[in-house]
Amino acid sequence: MTTIHFEAVPAVEAHRRTPGLVVMKFGGTSVGDTDKLKRVAKRLVAAREAGSKVVAVLSAMGKTTDELIRLAHEVSEQPHPREYDMLVSTGERISNALCAMAIHDLGHEAVSFTGSQAGIVTDGSHTKAKIVEVRAQRIHTALEEDKIVLVAGFQGVSTSTHDVTTLGRGGSDTTAVALAAALGADACEIFTDVPGVFTADPRIVPTALKLDRVTYEEMLEMSASGAKVMALRSIEVARSYGVKLRVRSTFAEGEGTWIGEEDDVVLEKAIISGVTHDTSEAKVSIIGVPDRPGIAAKVFRDLARAGVNIDMIVQNVSQDGAASITFTLPKTDVPIAEPILDSLGAELGASRIERDPDIAKISLIGAGMKSHPGVAADMFDALAEAGINIEIISTSSIRVSCVVRADQVERAVQAVHDRFQGFAQARVDG
Amino acid sequence: MTTIHFEAVPAVEAHRRTPGLVVMKFGGTSVGDTDKLKRVAKRLVAAREAGSKVVAVLSAMGKTTDELIRLAHEVSEQPHPREYDMLVSTGERISNALCAMAIHDLGHEAVSFTGSQAGIVTDGSHTKAKIVEVRAQRIHTALEEDKIVLVAGFQGVSTSTHDVTTLGRGGSDTTAVALAAALGADACEIFTDVPGVFTADPRIVPTALKLDRVTYEEMLEMSASGAKVMALRSIEVARSYGVKLRVRSTFAEGEGTWIGEEDDVVLEKAIISGVTHDTSEAKVSIIGVPDRPGIAAKVFRDLARAGVNIDMIVQNVSQDGAASITFTLPKTDVPIAEPILDSLGAELGASRIERDPDIAKISLIGAGMKSHPGVAADMFDALAEAGINIEIISTSSIRVSCVVRADQVERAVQAVHDRFQGFAQARVDG
Repeated sequence: MTTIHFEAVPAVEAHRRTPGLVVMKFGGTSVGDTDKLKRVAKRLVAAREAGSKVVAVLSAMGKTTDELIRLAHEVSEQPHPREYDMLVSTGERISNALCAMAIHDLGHEAVSFTGSQAGIVTDGSHTKAKIVEVRAQRIHTALEEDKIVLVAGFQGVSTSTHDVTTLGRGGSDTTAVALAAALGADACEIFTDVPGVFTADPRIVPTALKLDRVTYEEMLEMSASGAKVMALRSIEVARSYGVKLRVRSTFAEGEGTWIGEEDDVVLEKAIISGVTHDTSEAKVSIIGVPDRPGIAAKVFRDLARAGVNIDMIVQNVSQDGAASITFTLPKTDVPIAEPILDSLGAELGASRIERDPDIAKISLIGAGMKSHPGVAADMFDALAEAGINIEIISTSSIRVSCVVRADQVERAVQAVHDRFQGFAQARVDG
Repeated sequence: MTTIHFEAVPAVEAHRRTPGLVVMKFGGTSVGDTDKLKRVAKRLVAAREAGSKVVAVLSAMGKTTDELIRLAHEVSEQPHPREYDMLVSTGERISNALCAMAIHDLGHEAVSFTGSQAGIVTDGSHTKAKIVEVRAQRIHTALEEDKIVLVAGFQGVSTSTHDVTTLGRGGSDTTAVALAAALGADACEIFTDVPGVFTADPRIVPTALKLDRVTYEEMLEMSASGAKVMALRSIEVARSYGVKLRVRSTFAEGEGTWIGEEDDVVLEKAIISGVTHDTSEAKVSIIGVPDRPGIAAKVFRDLARAGVNIDMIVQNVSQDGAASITFTLPKTDVPIAEPILDSLGAELGASRIERDPDIAKISLIGAGMKSHPGVAADMFDALAEAGINIEIISTSSIRVSCVVRADQVERAVQAVHDRFQGFAQARVDG
């Protein structure tokens, strides 16, 4: 039967296709209460009745996972990771079992599987496990029996200890994409509370457009720079295995946004796919350290060892030979970083360390950027015209990011989106 | 390793003993919130530090299971049994994982297992599965690693389909007793919100005494006739495998009540172990049916086929040759019985069918009754003196039960307990 080794076999050809199969993933807000679960059940039945084979991956209902985490912290200051996974994995079992019941009431056969029963085999890294293999025998059997298959997202079973593992936040996206890859599905549909991927957050930019298509690379950059529509890792897995993704609304009709290879997307005039923003990071500056080799390496090695994720980095050297290092990190990592920064500051003889939580990052993303020089300059120009100061800049081949003051982020997104609106338009008419 | 086949191997000698092992079971009210869970964790650690090997079985927290059942009925009129088990089994996973975390915080190693991980193998009867085998390898390994082992009660895994099953209400008691049998534990302790088994409900009879010891047979009769301290099936399993049981309070010290073989219990003067009562049954009379062979058989065969549990039965024949059949059944079974009774009434030409929900059953239980004739007569006499009319009588070798009016049950219990108080006393000093 179908067995994909996710580390060992990177090729898409490694697995058989299951024609007519669609994997449909529904997030927590899509299954927030029993009424919404019943609507999801109807949607799955409609897909089955339209002729598709259906595998669905449901997240936990609404705030269930948060509530379980709250309980964990009531009984333990540092919940044991194995037991934490045992605990929080129950939320998805509840929502998937309930949806299977609702499907039965609609006159269709359905079966819900835990991650373990679905054959989602992971490494043993509790709370952040990686899928290493999908053993899809039970799913294939259930599909052959004409059942709608529901799989508890976000979880698996450790290949070494046979313990329950979880994949970390956003893990249900990864479950869905991994299943779509292993089963050879026609597509993996990510149902959410917005109709697709937008050129900017419509709450900030009312003229933001829904994109018909984006490339994997663009979606990766958008997710990494603040777009919340899909979890970053799941997009990486989709790209590796060539899984066609589609983001669409749970409770409205509509084509949504397709995410695929660059060849599939009309790129000629469509330089830009969108403007994203992120207010979840803080800025730290270590000021007045000696300008000698190895200082930056020491700083970032110590932080990495503690598991702190560093995003943007700038190093300046002043005329008197003292250097300063500035970087951004998730605000949630600041408590972990604090003691390391204090001892680093003393050890390196820094004159002072500045913390600044009031920053925002705005990013312009577009695969067409590679062949269109001048995009970054246009972006800086648009920000300057709006009177917005840029504090840090970082770029990739298809992304330009700028750190600005947090209270200017909405104006910044609006200004950059206005400047590039015409370029994004081409992507929508498709 | 230890594998007990519960259907096939009835002998106690079939398994190895694990000296120093105690199985400790905590019900829903004992783990009602995170504070109580932390107190249970302390109790388990105390037992471990006192030198015992500890396997604990926790029920779901307080009203968790009721809440899950409510959700099931919100999405489905008749929840699919397989999915129902998938759903309601999550409650015990939550409480056991949380308790394991709390134990880690107290500096001890602990591991929580699902029913499946613990090797609780059942038949495939969803919502009322029976344990057929315990494959205790993972538990033995964890005990050898000096861990406190927690097992989610009330659940197992189907031997044929590998689906999650549940054992029905009270199933956590059965999980605990089956584990104690399979592991060869020194004892199985049932922790609850009362200090032990009483000669009558202390809320009704303030002078009721806590018993130090009762026999399996007495405990079976007491549970079957209204005592709620342990689930009936778990006592049957304990008796079959010779598991020493002890009922005690979760949140108070005290010896509790030991339940074991008759030989272990001082019976000379201790004729009576207690008075129980039960207001959960209703009475039905089918009046004016022909007095010919096969009528009663037909009535009870039809009701049994529908899954209705009949308790007490009386048949009378009047002088004109017409018979009437009276029986009691759980009030919850009345809606199932109604249509069968209506068609039986028509088919048998009964003159009428009477339903009476306002009854109560009071029972007097004692292993010593077998060698002390006259106990039943004394009980009837006590009720008559109190002016209480007896509607139905049924007896076993160690029990006498009488149906009385529901509004007289408290006076009836008090009157019978008063009459036999002296006989029960001997059981307490033991």
